Amino acid sequence: MRAVVKTAPGPGLSLQTVADPTPGPRDAVVRVLATSICGTDGHIYRWDDWAQSRIRPPRIIGHELCGEVVAVGADVTLVEVGDYVAAESHLTCGRCFQCRTGQAHVCKDYRILGVDVDGSYADYVRLPETVLWNTPRELPPEFACVQEPLGNAVDAALAESLAGKSVLVTGCGPTGLLAIAVARVSGASVIVAVDASDSRLGLAKQLGATLTLHATRDPQQAMDAAIQDLTSGEGLDAALEMSGHPAALHQAFRSVKNGGRVTLFGIPTGSVSFDLPNEIIFKGIRVYGVTGRRLFSTWYRLAGLFKAGLDIRPVITHTFPLTDFAKGFDLIHSGQCGKVVLFPGQG
Amino acid sequence: MRAVVKTAPGPGLSLQTVADPTPGPRDAVVRVLATSICGTDGHIYRWDDWAQSRIRPPRIIGHELCGEVVAVGADVTLVEVGDYVAAESHLTCGRCFQCRTGQAHVCKDYRILGVDVDGSYADYVRLPETVLWNTPRELPPEFACVQEPLGNAVDAALAESLAGKSVLVTGCGPTGLLAIAVARVSGASVIVAVDASDSRLGLAKQLGATLTLHATRDPQQAMDAAIQDLTSGEGLDAALEMSGHPAALHQAFRSVKNGGRVTLFGIPTGSVSFDLPNEIIFKGIRVYGVTGRRLFSTWYRLAGLFKAGLDIRPVITHTFPLTDFAKGFDLIHSGQCGKVVLFPGQG
Amino acid sequence: MRAVVKTAPGPGLSLQTVADPTPGPRDAVVRVLATSICGTDGHIYRWDDWAQSRIRPPRIIGHELCGEVVAVGADVTLVEVGDYVAAESHLTCGRCFQCRTGQAHVCKDYRILGVDVDGSYADYVRLPETVLWNTPRELPPEFACVQEPLGNAVDAALAESLAGKSVLVTGCGPTGLLAIAVARVSGASVIVAVDASDSRLGLAKQLGATLTLHATRDPQQAMDAAIQDLTSGEGLDAALEMSGHPAALHQAFRSVKNGGRVTLFGIPTGSVSFDLPNEIIFKGIRVYGVTGRRLFSTWYRLAGLFKAGLDIRPVITHTFPLTDFAKGFDLIHSGQCGKVVLFPGQG
Amino acid sequence: MRAVVKTAPGPGLSLQTVADPTPGPRDAVVRVLATSICGTDGHIYRWDDWAQSRIRPPRIIGHELCGEVVAVGADVTLVEVGDYVAAESHLTCGRCFQCRTGQAHVCKDYRILGVDVDGSYADYVRLPETVLWNTPRELPPEFACVQEPLGNAVDAALAESLAGKSVLVTGCGPTGLLAIAVARVSGASVIVAVDASDSRLGLAKQLGATLTLHATRDPQQAMDAAIQDLTSGEGLDAALEMSGHPAALHQAFRSVKNGGRVTLFGIPTGSVSFDLPNEIIFKGIRVYGVTGRRLFSTWYRLAGLFKAGLDIRPVITHTFPLTDFAKGFDLIHSGQCGKVVLFPGQG
Repeated sequence: MRAVVKTAPGPGLSLQTVADPTPGPRDAVVRVLATSICGTDGHIYRWDDWAQSRIRPPRIIGHELCGEVVAVGADVTLVEVGDYVAAESHLTCGRCFQCRTGQAHVCKDYRILGVDVDGSYADYVRLPETVLWNTPRELPPEFACVQEPLGNAVDAALAESLAGKSVLVTGCGPTGLLAIAVARVSGASVIVAVDASDSRLGLAKQLGATLTLHATRDPQQAMDAAIQDLTSGEGLDAALEMSGHPAALHQAFRSVKNGGRVTLFGIPTGSVSFDLPNEIIFKGIRVYGVTGRRLFSTWYRLAGLFKAGLDIRPVITHTFPLTDFAKGFDLIHSGQCGKVVLFPGQG
Repeated sequence: MRAVVKTAPGPGLSLQTVADPTPGPRDAVVRVLATSICGTDGHIYRWDDWAQSRIRPPRIIGHELCGEVVAVGADVTLVEVGDYVAAESHLTCGRCFQCRTGQAHVCKDYRILGVDVDGSYADYVRLPETVLWNTPRELPPEFACVQEPLGNAVDAALAESLAGKSVLVTGCGPTGLLAIAVARVSGASVIVAVDASDSRLGLAKQLGATLTLHATRDPQQAMDAAIQDLTSGEGLDAALEMSGHPAALHQAFRSVKNGGRVTLFGIPTGSVSFDLPNEIIFKGIRVYGVTGRRLFSTWYRLAGLFKAGLDIRPVITHTFPLTDFAKGFDLIHSGQCGKVVLFPGQG
Repeated sequence: MRAVVKTAPGPGLSLQTVADPTPGPRDAVVRVLATSICGTDGHIYRWDDWAQSRIRPPRIIGHELCGEVVAVGADVTLVEVGDYVAAESHLTCGRCFQCRTGQAHVCKDYRILGVDVDGSYADYVRLPETVLWNTPRELPPEFACVQEPLGNAVDAALAESLAGKSVLVTGCGPTGLLAIAVARVSGASVIVAVDASDSRLGLAKQLGATLTLHATRDPQQAMDAAIQDLTSGEGLDAALEMSGHPAALHQAFRSVKNGGRVTLFGIPTGSVSFDLPNEIIFKGIRVYGVTGRRLFSTWYRLAGLFKAGLDIRPVITHTFPLTDFAKGFDLIHSGQCGKVVLFPGQG
Repeated sequence: MRAVVKTAPGPGLSLQTVADPTPGPRDAVVRVLATSICGTDGHIYRWDDWAQSRIRPPRIIGHELCGEVVAVGADVTLVEVGDYVAAESHLTCGRCFQCRTGQAHVCKDYRILGVDVDGSYADYVRLPETVLWNTPRELPPEFACVQEPLGNAVDAALAESLAGKSVLVTGCGPTGLLAIAVARVSGASVIVAVDASDSRLGLAKQLGATLTLHATRDPQQAMDAAIQDLTSGEGLDAALEMSGHPAALHQAFRSVKNGGRVTLFGIPTGSVSFDLPNEIIFKGIRVYGVTGRRLFSTWYRLAGLFKAGLDIRPVITHTFPLTDFAKGFDLIHSGQCGKVVLFPGQG
């Protein structure tokens, strides 16, 4: 089969022909219909410090996918050949405290698809049956594969109910945009979106943001004033920090009202300093670190949100045949895009 | 001023001219712009057992209202003359455990507007400043007065988040209909509505119900099968029992999945028998008794839901001048209506 | 090996010699050190309606146990030979919504040890590795086997925190007594225990009950007055209904304050009628149906409670060699006991 | 009456004779039986930056107190002359979003007793009736006045239930020590206490700490190893950061397991840098900023914890007549003490 492989330490990826995967007794093999590019894939492509410390080439990368089950191992009971599935990308250990208490999303010892085991930038991928998620055929592949990052957005947005609540979203990359869509369909009263890209702010608006603020062009004081104005001086109920930028982190804590909630999802590149008394303690704020997706309550919930009318179409801005993966990575690195989806079956 | 008064023990109400109210030091007087009919008002009108045990005539009735502040007492600071307000109808004691711990909605010793003190079926009503709720002018009076029962619907529906969850609503009277609207705007995946009136089921559909079932015409087994079918055999995540009918109560417990949630809001007229092991215990169900509205988090939340797009227009099916109140009560007793609103300023 | 078997439909059980179990690939075989009698075992012994509908003889019964792992299948990784273990008695399906969302305690399709598969009234028992719970050697067998019903008590008592809260426990059978011990070590302010047996009320007192009331000798009004007196007229924060008796159920709802919490765990033998408005709705009460044990957060929690000083010694009132099982059942049916423990290795 | 007054900008306090307070219509005057020294009082004494920016002399300081009501205003209904009371020290506005939604502990506009209005280092203090807390006479004055900081400890410790959970407490000043006592009575499995004072670690042990670690003498690696050892390599369920020291903050985040909880209560003197991904985000941690006390659920809860056996006696290490207040401040600044209590009626 064809696959996009990190063949050796160093930048870049290559399209190669490799052996088709075969399933172990509790595995399935999935023909990949669509696989989308995550920021993590960009790190591996560029071969940054994190990638150098974690990836052991050769490795087929990619972990956001959907496809069709084409083979199953002898002990598989959760799916059958022909099923249309997406996949949880965290392969959890099943043995740790977290796994045994319904918190496998923070498993102490999980492996990541396309990072620690071969991934989905390929015609086929082998997966344990337990990570597969049956998906209704009405959801086309370019959206079905995005359920994985959508799960992040669901957990970030809905760590507490947003029904009737006002919320800030700092960072309108794909997951931030998905979080806006989730907040919109879940009854958020007002959604303030912040980013440094006009095109992303345009997408935010399209997905339901009430107010968009430009992170670098709008002065901080003007942004604060706009938020206070929008909330009758009360501040916002919640903030979802999806960027990892220090300025955005401080804006999140500054913008929520006393007793409010802040979700931390975006990954800063270095340490960030906080004035804890004024940013968290005296305000009585709750902070949630969010990573992964709750297995599988988040997946059930996102399926329910689609039924409720969740519309993520504007988030997918570009699609390419898998063979044109390099174009996708160029786009990702330019920041001039939402989610980029690759189709192995094309090209 | 004109007022609709229960003048003496017995059925009926009369339009009378009475003295205008004047505010005490922490009171406001509100010119009533709209006041809607609650089921409780129907009990008082008909003079049933409950009414006989509770009401001490003469009493101006009515407790769902909005209007304009026309006078305030010397110590009032929360509102001013000219404010457009609705009102919380429970006058809580401020002294009990519940009031002192943020649970005033279950105050041990509250009085009800229009039941224990003179109410809103009048040109003017006197109210403690603490129960007034500033309302944006964009919400016309016929909707603003309905915020009080809407608060019930919000607490019934959102006792737990409905985002991405499936929900049953048994009973499509005004509060049941409002609960459907709340569930819809809050991201419910599917909403199954049950009632014995085709016109109410039509309104339920209009407000966002996914599936409507006729309580007496559809056989129970067919209703159960429809629900199982809609949920891939899993059952529903939640049920809101808004009718008080025994059959609906059992359907609520039967329809939710293991680990699900049932809100009890509808008031049965007598005792109801339960098979606790199979209806609650072995299913690991959470049950919430809901009454009143959380002061004032529910009011803030409903204000937020209006901003999120909550549309309750279909619920208000009839409006009359206050002087035609008897027509309103005839409608209420027929069941052929949603919410009926009376306008003191007309007629 | 020796085992206590329901050999054919009908009352009674017999001690038999049967083949030793051998482990499947993901199973362990445990040498049973202690196994305690549950009310369920009594139903099977007496062969009541429930037992007739559920049990397919021949069946080795018993599901509360501890012991030592003596053999493991090829794929076992969670335990090893020599481990000292207790066991979760619900063998969950791993496939349903509940199992996949961290709610396996309400699995839609679980089997019960000693009911649907051969159990622990035997020298050895075969168990899937996933239900085994490593137990510190400091906990002697007669207590280690009681961890299973203790888990029920933990979930019943701690459905919400009891720290600084007042609580009623109706029913002082073994699980009620365990719930009292859990409430005591978890910081309950006052614990009111109700039962119809003086000896059980004595045990309740020993385990930390503040006040004991005799269910049939103390008049209802006197019990209510005692509770009001103890709580300055406020009522209790929580009630744990552990008996299934209708009178106790009503006392639970009557005794908790507005906004309080009621756990339902005891199993009534028939339907029970409720005045929902006054018992639940107008009081704004939360009701939790509790069954099984959360896998495995409850087990971790009970291990933590032992470290915190949980003392369940008074609950175990009688021990016998397994061969004297009939004496144990006689005691159970008399009600003159706490928990009865059988030792397969003796006699 | 005699009072300890900050008479003018600058360090120190002086004992003066001032006019007795008289109650406004909704106030009570309390004869102070005991008043304890808070760290905040030390800031005012030393006249540090915070004090200079906040205090407008002349001001009677002190905000932790108990006493007897000796006079009440005309409209007072919550207390009467002769009542034995402690006091909530935050005088909340009653008008903001937080006050109106049961979150007055994070009121946007509260004043503090002894900071913004005259306080309790005096023979008498005037207080709004709404902040008074009726206390049982069994609790002697030196403990009754400490209920205010105890409330902080309750909210810090019990932001989530500790029953059966392991917990770290960094910082064993008076509030940290109180938190240990609260954790102990609430069923914590193990309590690890960290401080740089041997005498405070001794008190921690006396109050129920399982393991004490010396913050500067024990190497960080040894402390980490001890915690891992105590928890079978899992880490702790919760951490209460009561010191504000950067090293303690990092230890808190490092010591809790994935999915754990950290309470922030201690006030750092400057900014603190965090590695958010590894300290919070990837661990899926919940962080609670805690300030003040929940009005009045925390007060009810601490009253319940006393009934459950909460013993705070070791925390009160020194008592003086009010006239010897300077000795108390010397002790506070030395750090060689727990809580120091002053008695206005003595000396």
